[in-house]
Amino acid sequence: MTQPPDPVELTRRLIRCRSVTPEEGGALDLLQQVLEPLGFVCHRLVFSEDGTPNVDNLYARLGTGSPHLCFAGHTDVVPPGNPDDWRVDPFGGEVVDDAVIGRGAVDMKGAVACFVAAASRLAAGRGGEPGGSVSLLITGDEEGPSINGTRKVLDWMRERGEVPDYCLVGEPSSGTDLCDTIKIGRRGSMNFELTVHGTQGHSAYPQHADNPVHRLVRGLHRLTGDRLDEGSEHFEPSTLQVTSVDVGNPATNVIPAQATARFNVRFNDLHDSTAVERWVRERVEPDAPRFDLAVRVSGESFLCTPGPLSDALSAAVEEKLGRTPILGTGGGTSDGRFIKDLCPVAELGLKNALAHQVDERAPLRDLRDLTDVYEVALKRLLAC
Amino acid sequence: MTQPPDPVELTRRLIRCRSVTPEEGGALDLLQQVLEPLGFVCHRLVFSEDGTPNVDNLYARLGTGSPHLCFAGHTDVVPPGNPDDWRVDPFGGEVVDDAVIGRGAVDMKGAVACFVAAASRLAAGRGGEPGGSVSLLITGDEEGPSINGTRKVLDWMRERGEVPDYCLVGEPSSGTDLCDTIKIGRRGSMNFELTVHGTQGHSAYPQHADNPVHRLVRGLHRLTGDRLDEGSEHFEPSTLQVTSVDVGNPATNVIPAQATARFNVRFNDLHDSTAVERWVRERVEPDAPRFDLAVRVSGESFLCTPGPLSDALSAAVEEKLGRTPILGTGGGTSDGRFIKDLCPVAELGLKNALAHQVDERAPLRDLRDLTDVYEVALKRLLAC
Repeated sequence: MTQPPDPVELTRRLIRCRSVTPEEGGALDLLQQVLEPLGFVCHRLVFSEDGTPNVDNLYARLGTGSPHLCFAGHTDVVPPGNPDDWRVDPFGGEVVDDAVIGRGAVDMKGAVACFVAAASRLAAGRGGEPGGSVSLLITGDEEGPSINGTRKVLDWMRERGEVPDYCLVGEPSSGTDLCDTIKIGRRGSMNFELTVHGTQGHSAYPQHADNPVHRLVRGLHRLTGDRLDEGSEHFEPSTLQVTSVDVGNPATNVIPAQATARFNVRFNDLHDSTAVERWVRERVEPDAPRFDLAVRVSGESFLCTPGPLSDALSAAVEEKLGRTPILGTGGGTSDGRFIKDLCPVAELGLKNALAHQVDERAPLRDLRDLTDVYEVALKRLLAC
Repeated sequence: MTQPPDPVELTRRLIRCRSVTPEEGGALDLLQQVLEPLGFVCHRLVFSEDGTPNVDNLYARLGTGSPHLCFAGHTDVVPPGNPDDWRVDPFGGEVVDDAVIGRGAVDMKGAVACFVAAASRLAAGRGGEPGGSVSLLITGDEEGPSINGTRKVLDWMRERGEVPDYCLVGEPSSGTDLCDTIKIGRRGSMNFELTVHGTQGHSAYPQHADNPVHRLVRGLHRLTGDRLDEGSEHFEPSTLQVTSVDVGNPATNVIPAQATARFNVRFNDLHDSTAVERWVRERVEPDAPRFDLAVRVSGESFLCTPGPLSDALSAAVEEKLGRTPILGTGGGTSDGRFIKDLCPVAELGLKNALAHQVDERAPLRDLRDLTDVYEVALKRLLAC
């Protein structure tokens, strides 16, 4: 039996691993070195697929009992941009003004370190075996295409019958205050590319042409003016954002033959992607007799109805930090979209404000507090 | 005194001159060779300006008396495109199926040849001097930037006190039937480039961004949905055509910082360009607190109220072709926009259907008929 690791020190060591997606960078090796002496059984799972980089993943489980709580996280990080823009080396793991600064500090090497520390304390306190069992699913492909990461580890787990009872995702869910938000679902996301066809002609003779830009404008006016919904119990209203419109016609005296727009829809649990596509088509069709619509679904919306997992997390936050977290569903996608098909999932992690930005940092206090919250939640869920 | 030239043969010889803007191609030389023996005093006027090609122009006048009718035309032509797409050599001046085929056949070497033939007949009939005087203003820069062409010849004429009483422009004004339309004015034309500024952000968090595409769409919806007017006595309704919208944002998860649209307005005599710009701004401002609007005025609208010139042309058409032309103002810009500041102007020429197209052609019958119409109109206007 070894000493539980310190969450701050482990965060700093993880940051020093240059694990920009899809590089493992030594981060999974480090976790394995920490977890195995604590009794975790570790599996390294390298997946590959044509046209995508090989990805290294780690699955580590302590105990075999029930209930089984799985912590899902990732050690890969987005690139730091220009290192000169940072106060300190983004891969130095330095502490400045009582915060660890570095790429991945909050998204999400910090939370991984907190959970490892919390689970280790539990293991230490129980003589190596918690009441149920605790596992970690750590991928190296969350910030990338997400093809050879969590999804394939979950397939591997399913095949082995390793189906957790609950899954806690360590994404930075907190806003202004640490643990002020637990995410219990996510909006779905879809990308559309709409091309409206018309008939080319001379600007001076619009009666002999059919301007596709005008048709597209009417469609986009409807798409951006109408609301998909007014929100639901746990979700904000769904949103549609046009990200580009492109015609590329340099001639001022020519009406073009076609016009293209791209837009992104984030939708809540009142819709699935099929319904959203129908809603979009209904708004394009009245003004565009001829159009092409390419649709890519990044993820369906999901909601894990509040239950034992979110109850335990909320209670832990209240006990350790004296605040009541809200159960939210905002923000972008996460690997929770894959996990929710296996078991109830909730997300609780550090503050998201500086994720993906220059001088990404995690206050030392937040790292210690989150470790405490994770530890209490683990105890409550595993009833130990 | 020489024989008046045949309009068909002169058209064919002009087409054989490769006078793609700004090349003179021998076309003005040819006209001068034809006009001087008929008694025309010819001036070759070469103008240049920084950044534009030198342009050769011809001003030729027969007689010095009053009234003075000026015929304005051009011998420059647009490029033929791929010659292999043509039935015959676009610069061969060949006759196929009773029509002269070639670049410039209708726009407007054919009409230039018809007018030269008509004026020559008049001169021959009157022993070299018509009752008033007849001039030709033939430019080599109508299809190009129109900087060193008609506009500068008109300046030169003004300085010499050569101010015509009437000006007939030989642009292809006819639609289905020869001489079915006399143009007595033109719509104005303006080009706009509108850039709407917003605030960049993540598609998943539109509340932290300000999408300029949505603001632009609302502005364009108003600009393309509202009408400038319902037309006036001699004009069709003004039109606005969006020719391009460009954002150029490849990232589906990023709300862009700005969005640009380009549009062209053709406006009638109910507006001037200042009023049109104001109308545009009023439709953009409500939804775009920050925008840039670049405005380029290609020409103001103008109307030459029906009078002796259009009366004489109409009477000539009725006499020779048995039809009553309509007095129109449709179509694109022409050099008439410069001439109208000097004297009343009207446009009458061949059929416009094949102008600028492959296998541009003028039926032999049309060339002979237009010559007759020009001759009768000349006689009426010069009262000889």
